[in-house]
Amino acid sequence: MAADDQSHKIMRAAGLGEQCEGLNMRKVAIVGAGQSKYGEFPEKGIKELFFEAYQDMASSVDKNYDPKLVESAYIGNLGSGGFQLGNMSALVAEYAGLPYIHTVRIENACASGGYALVAAIMDVLSGTHKMVIAGGVEKMTDVSGMKQKYWLGVSGDTEYERLAGTTFAGLYSLIAHRHMHEFGTKREHLSMVAVKNHKNGAQNPKAQFQREISLEQAMKSPIVAYPLNLFDCCSTTDGASSVLVCDAEIAKQFTDTPIYVTGFGTSSDYLAIHDRARTVTLEGSRRAGEHAYKMAGRTPKDMNLAEVHDCFTIAELLATEDLGFCEKGKAGQFIEEGHTQIGGDMPINPSGGLKSKGHPIGSTGTGQAYEMFNQLRGKVEKPVRQVKDAEIGLIHNVGGSGGTVSVSIMER
Amino acid sequence: MAADDQSHKIMRAAGLGEQCEGLNMRKVAIVGAGQSKYGEFPEKGIKELFFEAYQDMASSVDKNYDPKLVESAYIGNLGSGGFQLGNMSALVAEYAGLPYIHTVRIENACASGGYALVAAIMDVLSGTHKMVIAGGVEKMTDVSGMKQKYWLGVSGDTEYERLAGTTFAGLYSLIAHRHMHEFGTKREHLSMVAVKNHKNGAQNPKAQFQREISLEQAMKSPIVAYPLNLFDCCSTTDGASSVLVCDAEIAKQFTDTPIYVTGFGTSSDYLAIHDRARTVTLEGSRRAGEHAYKMAGRTPKDMNLAEVHDCFTIAELLATEDLGFCEKGKAGQFIEEGHTQIGGDMPINPSGGLKSKGHPIGSTGTGQAYEMFNQLRGKVEKPVRQVKDAEIGLIHNVGGSGGTVSVSIMER
Repeated sequence: MAADDQSHKIMRAAGLGEQCEGLNMRKVAIVGAGQSKYGEFPEKGIKELFFEAYQDMASSVDKNYDPKLVESAYIGNLGSGGFQLGNMSALVAEYAGLPYIHTVRIENACASGGYALVAAIMDVLSGTHKMVIAGGVEKMTDVSGMKQKYWLGVSGDTEYERLAGTTFAGLYSLIAHRHMHEFGTKREHLSMVAVKNHKNGAQNPKAQFQREISLEQAMKSPIVAYPLNLFDCCSTTDGASSVLVCDAEIAKQFTDTPIYVTGFGTSSDYLAIHDRARTVTLEGSRRAGEHAYKMAGRTPKDMNLAEVHDCFTIAELLATEDLGFCEKGKAGQFIEEGHTQIGGDMPINPSGGLKSKGHPIGSTGTGQAYEMFNQLRGKVEKPVRQVKDAEIGLIHNVGGSGGTVSVSIMER
Repeated sequence: MAADDQSHKIMRAAGLGEQCEGLNMRKVAIVGAGQSKYGEFPEKGIKELFFEAYQDMASSVDKNYDPKLVESAYIGNLGSGGFQLGNMSALVAEYAGLPYIHTVRIENACASGGYALVAAIMDVLSGTHKMVIAGGVEKMTDVSGMKQKYWLGVSGDTEYERLAGTTFAGLYSLIAHRHMHEFGTKREHLSMVAVKNHKNGAQNPKAQFQREISLEQAMKSPIVAYPLNLFDCCSTTDGASSVLVCDAEIAKQFTDTPIYVTGFGTSSDYLAIHDRARTVTLEGSRRAGEHAYKMAGRTPKDMNLAEVHDCFTIAELLATEDLGFCEKGKAGQFIEEGHTQIGGDMPINPSGGLKSKGHPIGSTGTGQAYEMFNQLRGKVEKPVRQVKDAEIGLIHNVGGSGGTVSVSIMER
């Protein structure tokens, strides 16, 4: 108790836990964003994939873009394409024509891209650099099987989970089971996530799977780890994305319509799900969302849309609840009622999500930022995918089965 | 030309390239630092190694340390102990009793630790968190040979160097050859680095190799890649380190003698040495040093000591020149004249350096910070290793053969 009092005293003195509340800071802006096509590209490695996203980003900047202005780049990546295990941030930067800058590889499993974005935001806020790339890249197909096995099993607690025989789908199946048990969530609800996201992704020219599926198809696909079947699982994907983050003071030199990052939050959690108090909540998501809402001075109801981490369909249901879009346990009903469709009152994953757009791990978080940038500027390629009058949105990226989570709130 | 003029205009408007000059900022302080013993520990994995460093750090804080105050942790790591490929930052944090915080794994090859420190500094400067751990850990021994091969070859340009058959010692041997050719550097000069660093490391109770070697032993050791022999190469090492970085405003609540980070700089470079204009300079070191000196408002002559990246003996000679301690080409003469000995006018690697202390990759940069923290507080374990009246020092961490470099300047 005495130690706690002392801690609180120091924290109050330091302003800890207070400095980020209700800032709705408009100090950091995004002025460009690009994405490679997501899919399987045997002819492309991490350098080529990132370059494609970088060029797309550069050409998205409305005016005055010059590579010489880029001072820093954070690259989210997990597997390094299976062979460039070290220093890949500098490699993809120099290949894109950006030598001698500050480059950092960020690896937080499937949340690497989301954390790369947060690192870029902090870099700008720190005053160190004014123009910073947050990007991500992953080469997952056409590499050795050993490496793929590593990729898919290494982001939980390896000693207590993977080496004990649990697969990644296995971990999420435990969570899904418990969610069904506690809240009466039905298998149909899981499949509804897949159907919705495939419907959205069918209209996304950069998505890996551009086709719709029926509820029946989704329900009857082969079991992977009950209750999760094939259409409950996202795929392995090659792809990259790149976002141009800058000091808000200079944003208007590059576009008349910058998008501001008004809040962000992150949280880690115990990796092994057996160490957690509850399995039906990703505590990291709950905390990361809470931090981001506080910083932005917003609530879940203020969001016009969200891109959330649906590595498995159950993960989208968890996110819907943990980020406060509906009550805990009600996500099944929420999707069933159509709220999360494009055109609903809380569209989720208009891009197609990880499920249909694809999940090139390190790229996923900054790929969400790319989608949100375009949504908030009203510039989605096909009008059918555009969330109307979108002004505020949230992106949510999960590492492993919730060991790390990042959330960012973006506003027009 | 027109584009360049435009860029310069924008840069001037934005204050780019100016914002960090001559600040000698005293906004960020280090109030604790710890290191595990470096060596071969078959019984310890990354969790146990990091925990050892963390506990050492916690007990080094003079007063008021409470784990609840830690809000963020950046962990430098390359190989994840061969099996926890994803999310390891959250894993080592929760194992150390720090769940739910902001954790990030930083991977920039052998400079991962140095960049973790820079990330922690930026985090504090950004106002996001006030108390941040910068740490690093590597488990290199007692893992499979495949993984070791990866570790040692993956930080150059894999496609153009490793897959073409070059080893890491091979790359540095090319650099050493050219240095000898251009400047008349002798093989003896390389061995003098090994002899000096073993002499220092012999007095470091946490070093991997605590024994002196003679110049004759160093000269006659087996060739690895001519002109580099066994004693020109650092070893593979298990180890971890952890540094407590905080907002300078609260530093005095934890110690009466905080150490301030007054400047830092980084630079990437072309990974493949065939892409560089010169092989006898690490351009990344030169630029990172320049940035750091400018920010601190210091010159090389102001430094009382330096911990530099001597993965191979030639690398220490390069650093001695590239960081401005002597002219380009004169590092051989500089060490021969004794300047870099403890007791000389520019002591380099009083800890024993990578050569004798060991090189647990992800930990090396924050391990240098641990040494500098103790040197500047006059608290090195054995007086024989203490650089007298040390007030300002520099740490220098290189990723790969120079693809990424970080430099930080610390002052009493």
